[in-house]
Amino acid sequence: MPADIGLIGLAVMGRSLARNIANHGYSVAVHDRSTEVTEDFIRSFGGTFAQDTPAERPSPGLLGCRSMKDVVASLSPPRKVMLLIKAGEAVDSVIEQLVPLLSSGDVIIDGGNTHYTDTERRCRTAVEKGLLYVGAGVSGGEEGALKGPSMMPGGNESAWPLIQPIFQAIAARVGADGTTSCCDWIGPGGSGHYVKMVHNGIEYGDMQLIAETYSILSEGMRLSNSQLAATFAEWNRGELQSYLVEITRDIFTVKDPEGDGDLIDSILDCAGAKGTGKWMSQLALDLGVPSTLVTEAVFARALSSLKSERQAAQQVYAELKMETAFKTTDLQGIDDVRKALYAAKIVSYAQGFTQLKAAASEHGWRLDCGRIAELWRGGCIIRASFLERIKEAYDENPQLQNLLLAPYFRTAIEACHHAWRRTMHMAINLGLPTPAFSSALSYFDGYRCGRGPANLIQAQRDYFGAHTYERVDRARGDFFHTDWPSVRQPLPGR
Amino acid sequence: MPADIGLIGLAVMGRSLARNIANHGYSVAVHDRSTEVTEDFIRSFGGTFAQDTPAERPSPGLLGCRSMKDVVASLSPPRKVMLLIKAGEAVDSVIEQLVPLLSSGDVIIDGGNTHYTDTERRCRTAVEKGLLYVGAGVSGGEEGALKGPSMMPGGNESAWPLIQPIFQAIAARVGADGTTSCCDWIGPGGSGHYVKMVHNGIEYGDMQLIAETYSILSEGMRLSNSQLAATFAEWNRGELQSYLVEITRDIFTVKDPEGDGDLIDSILDCAGAKGTGKWMSQLALDLGVPSTLVTEAVFARALSSLKSERQAAQQVYAELKMETAFKTTDLQGIDDVRKALYAAKIVSYAQGFTQLKAAASEHGWRLDCGRIAELWRGGCIIRASFLERIKEAYDENPQLQNLLLAPYFRTAIEACHHAWRRTMHMAINLGLPTPAFSSALSYFDGYRCGRGPANLIQAQRDYFGAHTYERVDRARGDFFHTDWPSVRQPLPGR
Repeated sequence: MPADIGLIGLAVMGRSLARNIANHGYSVAVHDRSTEVTEDFIRSFGGTFAQDTPAERPSPGLLGCRSMKDVVASLSPPRKVMLLIKAGEAVDSVIEQLVPLLSSGDVIIDGGNTHYTDTERRCRTAVEKGLLYVGAGVSGGEEGALKGPSMMPGGNESAWPLIQPIFQAIAARVGADGTTSCCDWIGPGGSGHYVKMVHNGIEYGDMQLIAETYSILSEGMRLSNSQLAATFAEWNRGELQSYLVEITRDIFTVKDPEGDGDLIDSILDCAGAKGTGKWMSQLALDLGVPSTLVTEAVFARALSSLKSERQAAQQVYAELKMETAFKTTDLQGIDDVRKALYAAKIVSYAQGFTQLKAAASEHGWRLDCGRIAELWRGGCIIRASFLERIKEAYDENPQLQNLLLAPYFRTAIEACHHAWRRTMHMAINLGLPTPAFSSALSYFDGYRCGRGPANLIQAQRDYFGAHTYERVDRARGDFFHTDWPSVRQPLPGR
Repeated sequence: MPADIGLIGLAVMGRSLARNIANHGYSVAVHDRSTEVTEDFIRSFGGTFAQDTPAERPSPGLLGCRSMKDVVASLSPPRKVMLLIKAGEAVDSVIEQLVPLLSSGDVIIDGGNTHYTDTERRCRTAVEKGLLYVGAGVSGGEEGALKGPSMMPGGNESAWPLIQPIFQAIAARVGADGTTSCCDWIGPGGSGHYVKMVHNGIEYGDMQLIAETYSILSEGMRLSNSQLAATFAEWNRGELQSYLVEITRDIFTVKDPEGDGDLIDSILDCAGAKGTGKWMSQLALDLGVPSTLVTEAVFARALSSLKSERQAAQQVYAELKMETAFKTTDLQGIDDVRKALYAAKIVSYAQGFTQLKAAASEHGWRLDCGRIAELWRGGCIIRASFLERIKEAYDENPQLQNLLLAPYFRTAIEACHHAWRRTMHMAINLGLPTPAFSSALSYFDGYRCGRGPANLIQAQRDYFGAHTYERVDRARGDFFHTDWPSVRQPLPGR
């Protein structure tokens, strides 16, 4: 009996997804370029091997394959082969090996964090070869992939009916009766990977905001790790309920296995990154969409990695005088920080969805923002009850230009903005860096500002480079130039 | 008698540069793809045409050419042909037409705002054809190009002796005796265009900081345009002396030719951009170098362009309560803003030079940061007496990792940071967006922070994705993983 789907690549995500598929009653033919990895995996989780006699091969379950040929041979057309390998050249290399083994109408699914332009290219190539290609964003980390990830497939739409049963079976479920799958078809080409990239960018923003919150609460307000755990636990019962707040709560309870203190205090403050946040920033710059929060988060990680340079700078600025820390018991302050985090989080999601809409418009994708918020409601790293509010906002107005214009979020920000501003004062007084919080506030204040100071920038550009300007009292597209040096006036007396 | 150099492209920059070259006693053969433009230019500025008889052709001067062939025919080997045309495909197209007309050892110079990777590619292609290729950044706008720009040539170094006399003659001059040319050889490949791109990115940052300053002084402190002119005039006599502050002073004195008011108030607050700022941000992201200020400036321009959306948002948030404006006569406040501008400007230049050093390290360029600061000292848009301090800092320590570590700038920031923080308070209270100011402050506070909160980000990444972490008490490169869910503790009582 043929297997239902093939899966290539048995690192963290591949292993979890394969087990998830098998746990849902499907048989999955798995292969890793390292035969040892494949064999270990099958031994650990009770599968069989492709060359075992049919009598010994239980179905459903895990079927170990020592070659890609074995994977393909164990499937029946239209075959579905999912790759969970490192994004980049490795994907092209595996596709190149797979294509000669496949037949017209078979489906290749890339479940990695691939740049959407690569997926667009591979979709086109696959069509030329009669194959169907899907770029599927998969979020949830190790545990989510095993128990139910959020999945964002896009590409050749004819592939969707072929993979839908398995994908929607293994994805997370949300909704009042727990029947709404956190997997749905996103759109053509690289749209699935684009949506996943924005998910990851928002994740960068959330994590950076939580890190700045940690800085303010611990450095600024002297909360202990157990007080931090209690604070995040309390926050996780309210508007901020989310997986990231939940694991943050847990992190502060963990003891250092190698000492007397807490593990968090022994971890080096240099954050790594895998690239999706950077891509989102670079694409925002190309689109001309101000996704400042993810960008500050990416830059903050870059700055964090300069450990020895920062330590040297700390010495150089050792004499810099700052105000003293706030009192630990300043509970009004703690709630201010909670409100700041909530407001900044709203801005972060507003920016993310704005970028999605801009990308959709550029590529002619019809993205359903409400459904995307729902896909992220469960399974993935940014899952949060908050996403339900975003879905509702788009349900109410599918044409919504920016989440900040939705009545629910307007009310939320109005309720939080003074606390947010007070929190920024505190951080600035104490010399605590808040790149994401500050950037979010500037975006909010800039966005709701009908008349900004960019008229001066246009005047300067026209002055030195004859770049021209538009006028407030004329139609857009009417450009004017002034020969500034010839009309400037003597300075007035003061 | 042959002309000394050819120049193709007679838009704003090309016209000014051609006149500058002729004014310095050289003969320059000029051509524009529009014959009308070429003829108008020659008629306006008293040149002759290539097909005139030699007796009628004065030298030095402008020699109009109706074709590229005429340009090349009017030069003698090794020929030097400079392009001042729109960056992108047009450059490739002109090069393609030029190459068959040139001989081995001839020099092509691209004086546009070209992406440095294009220049790297064209350098390699030119070598294959026996030609020399130079990517030369040219800054100064219309007036600078005419009277003496800042020039940053890089590429095939053998070309330098051939173009040096003309380039150094026409460039701006600085220094105590006015003999230091603001043109020097930058390095191989695309290094000249890279340096020019960073110049432009810094220009974006300067302009955004000045725009935010304008917002704080006018919206926040109710200064009139004539008070603004007087304020910038005063600032231009101190540490902030610079071309951009000078033209800002002038801009506020200009009356609206179409009404009773000041021109600045009639200019639409939507800023345009040509792309070099965006490139710098995208390359900073690739390098992992936190150039936050240029990036916020680019995003601020993007946000400024959403005029109707911002006006709608202003209506939606019409009820948002802010504190009232400060008094106009709050002179301590005005000096606070000056200090904030100076401190943030230091951060902006620190980021720009850091990116230059990182790019140099990636490409194996040996950039002389002190000399680059000196090249920017005159002629270009960011020219400022401040750059003299930067040159001194690099003269004192050519290995300086970051300008913020230089004693002079440390002292300057220490003298300004309280005023800077107070200015941020004011802007935040008043709801005035300060993306560049805030980002600069967060960078400064983050950079001088030996221990930041990124340990939490690493803990989160290890929790959900098994990304591992390093420890403060172990060597860099030793990675640890914790099975967090299995070791988390019950929540402590509060």
